Amino acid sequence: MAEKITSRSVDYSQWYLDIVLNAKLADYSPVKGCMVIRPRGYAIWERLRDELDRRFKATGHVNAYFPMLIPMSFLKKEAEHVEGFAPELAVVTHGGGEELDEPLVLRPTSETIIWDKYRDWIQSWRDLPLLINQWANVVRWEKRTRLFLRTAEFLWQEGHTAHETSKEAEEETLRMLEVYRSFAEEFLALPVVAGVKSDSEKFAGAVRTYTIEAMMQDRKALQAGTSHFLGQNFAKAFDVKFQSREGKLEHVWASSWGVSTRLVGALIMTHSDDKGLVLPPTLAPEEVVIVPIFKGDSKPAVLAYGERLATALKSLGLRVVFDSDESNSPGWKFAEWEMRGTPVRIELGPRDMEAGKVVLVRRDTGEKEIVAVEAAPARVRELLGLIQANLLERARAFRVENTKSIGTRDEMLAFFSKEGAGTADATGGFAEALWCGSAECEAGLKAETKATLRCMPMDRQEGISGTCALCGAPAKHRAIFSRSY
Amino acid sequence: MAEKITSRSVDYSQWYLDIVLNAKLADYSPVKGCMVIRPRGYAIWERLRDELDRRFKATGHVNAYFPMLIPMSFLKKEAEHVEGFAPELAVVTHGGGEELDEPLVLRPTSETIIWDKYRDWIQSWRDLPLLINQWANVVRWEKRTRLFLRTAEFLWQEGHTAHETSKEAEEETLRMLEVYRSFAEEFLALPVVAGVKSDSEKFAGAVRTYTIEAMMQDRKALQAGTSHFLGQNFAKAFDVKFQSREGKLEHVWASSWGVSTRLVGALIMTHSDDKGLVLPPTLAPEEVVIVPIFKGDSKPAVLAYGERLATALKSLGLRVVFDSDESNSPGWKFAEWEMRGTPVRIELGPRDMEAGKVVLVRRDTGEKEIVAVEAAPARVRELLGLIQANLLERARAFRVENTKSIGTRDEMLAFFSKEGAGTADATGGFAEALWCGSAECEAGLKAETKATLRCMPMDRQEGISGTCALCGAPAKHRAIFSRSY
Repeated sequence: MAEKITSRSVDYSQWYLDIVLNAKLADYSPVKGCMVIRPRGYAIWERLRDELDRRFKATGHVNAYFPMLIPMSFLKKEAEHVEGFAPELAVVTHGGGEELDEPLVLRPTSETIIWDKYRDWIQSWRDLPLLINQWANVVRWEKRTRLFLRTAEFLWQEGHTAHETSKEAEEETLRMLEVYRSFAEEFLALPVVAGVKSDSEKFAGAVRTYTIEAMMQDRKALQAGTSHFLGQNFAKAFDVKFQSREGKLEHVWASSWGVSTRLVGALIMTHSDDKGLVLPPTLAPEEVVIVPIFKGDSKPAVLAYGERLATALKSLGLRVVFDSDESNSPGWKFAEWEMRGTPVRIELGPRDMEAGKVVLVRRDTGEKEIVAVEAAPARVRELLGLIQANLLERARAFRVENTKSIGTRDEMLAFFSKEGAGTADATGGFAEALWCGSAECEAGLKAETKATLRCMPMDRQEGISGTCALCGAPAKHRAIFSRSY
Repeated sequence: MAEKITSRSVDYSQWYLDIVLNAKLADYSPVKGCMVIRPRGYAIWERLRDELDRRFKATGHVNAYFPMLIPMSFLKKEAEHVEGFAPELAVVTHGGGEELDEPLVLRPTSETIIWDKYRDWIQSWRDLPLLINQWANVVRWEKRTRLFLRTAEFLWQEGHTAHETSKEAEEETLRMLEVYRSFAEEFLALPVVAGVKSDSEKFAGAVRTYTIEAMMQDRKALQAGTSHFLGQNFAKAFDVKFQSREGKLEHVWASSWGVSTRLVGALIMTHSDDKGLVLPPTLAPEEVVIVPIFKGDSKPAVLAYGERLATALKSLGLRVVFDSDESNSPGWKFAEWEMRGTPVRIELGPRDMEAGKVVLVRRDTGEKEIVAVEAAPARVRELLGLIQANLLERARAFRVENTKSIGTRDEMLAFFSKEGAGTADATGGFAEALWCGSAECEAGLKAETKATLRCMPMDRQEGISGTCALCGAPAKHRAIFSRSY
């Protein structure tokens, strides 16, 4: 039974949790910061994972699995890497009743354990490129956690590739960023800005981090995926060399890239509303629910009418639920399926049946339409396409609306000071501004407003001229600043 | 490059490792007892996993994900459970730079963390049955490990179901045993004996454990999957009660069941030979490899001939590799693809081309046949079916041949004493014998021969009469004894 969902305008954080818990996507674990992904949440993750996996394979990648336990000494081999991850490590000190000689960490990411192996696997340029991905759980001991968005353990994929040249490794880094961007927009209906991170926000151990950034309904940014050009940092740390085409011994070039279960959180905060979850049809465990309405004598005929329609819908390959459970009223079911996020609801009662009609209701807009039952399957399929497109466009329009070009420090402070306290009616958003490139400007803004440099959008770096909005020095980049998850 | 594979008749254990390492299925990890699953090994696991997942869903199960970290106190709630798993636990004592208040164990299995949650999710009979599976990594700190067969961390699936009645829970336990049995035989070509474990071999916390047992080529048994009837043990330990249809508050009944990456080891030790891996077509990353043979002028025509054939094979939905790499000789390629386990090889050279023929070679029997190129795709598909069936029947015949009915203690000792030192030419095997039911008889045999009671075959328990082969007391069961992995 759907419990009351807090309105977004009252408390956005509570609304988010209400959706996650009431739609039974996830639950708390007795271990602080860990999450139980319930069957409905996991079904969404499975659909997301399978599609992404398909796209990885289509771009030449294969899957493998590396151990979760990493010797502490491995992390220390790359100086920036250990500095970045040390505060978040969970450490295994005992195994089989004995204290271990060397503590083992639960992987926070797998560069170190993987590059230790690549040393054995790579001898010559013939062994390259090596294009491996893994689907795994990782652990980062976070102080403040939130279901899906930030949990001590989460599920993700991490690609780790090895190349002959810097150019090839960077091309791979960008290829995977584009896989993420197109996947986010086409499959998740999640519009994103693709860009480069500043040095202070890049991955610990990377030369350069690329990111896709999405805007949530409360106008905060969410980093939805990252792709790192690692240069030769890990090859040097783990002494991974190959014989080049010219017969020289050289260090290998690398990329790594990942997305995680936090994408489920991004989906919720992009599409859903005060009635509950809204899912893009691509991800919905069921695309259509049929709710029959009957009293007394009409029951057998209405049920048969509904079942015939369910069969017709399934024959088009659609995922259909026929909710004929009599222990709940139609009204209760409408609310329940809205809360669960099913894209299209079909209502049919005795009068609809007599007229040869059914009622179709879109979850995204709430629009109703009455169609002839024969026309319903084709129309439902059409509606699913319209819903998928509308979700993307609605979210994109929202982002555009809440992205402002900012020229001066005062404007910047005003833009972020106006932001409300975590409600969807808050102002703020993406501030697009020229930037001098200095970490001091970033740190100063963050201290005053909590806004950080989300990325330097890749398609907005041409013809930079003017001064840094934060310090007035000559600008080098155009950047997006925002508060974030 | 295929390195030399030790013959099975010389050293079966080394042969096994040679296959795993040379076919690039897995590799050692710097952390003792952990394993790296390489892309080829993982591709086999993926095919296996996807098919099993399909069968779970077809029987009404859904997937979820529970945390890997379990409070130590949870394990202690079920007395037998903690006693069974305590010696194998890996323990996290520090997180985020601080010592934890309570140590957390890495899941060795997830009954405890799952049943703690089921307490919240189950209130009424309407919430039952709850049919959840998870795919996850688990950790059991084993002293002696072997790639795939026994590793400190491994991948598996674990089903955890909750039911209204004892009868329903036991029916589920048996349903999943049958899913495992049919999956093993139909998909893995792995013949198995389905049976019940003795009390001394059952899962720690179960009322009764069912198993499927396979015989490896060295005549040892390998436990390939288990399904446990848990009674109300975990419901009582975690206080999981439901309101019954009669309005009473009762403890829930449970099952759990799992198979793991050790199945990949079972596959190797069932089907492979001294030339390398032999894979059932269902699991082979590529079902067919085409090796063109050409010199000088014939190259373009032979390559075109091969490519047309590859296209024709793919159009039948077959997984095909066209190995036109010129840096290796045809002979090298034949050996390499045999080592990798590809079920069918197609050889084609200039003379074959002129005659409109190709050569087909079966990996399982080595048989060659020459067929017209137009007939090749259909014949390859037919061969794949024959190979799949032959692998199952060959392994079944081997098991039957090496299963002996044993009537007395002396016969039993003789049967196991004859066993050679870990070679495929060893004697020994499955000893089928009447048994009184006492743990002392099991322990005595184990001490003398290392053979254990593998299971009491479910289809061989009717009309038991006679005396225990080990002690002469009246027999209660018919059991299979064997050395095992």
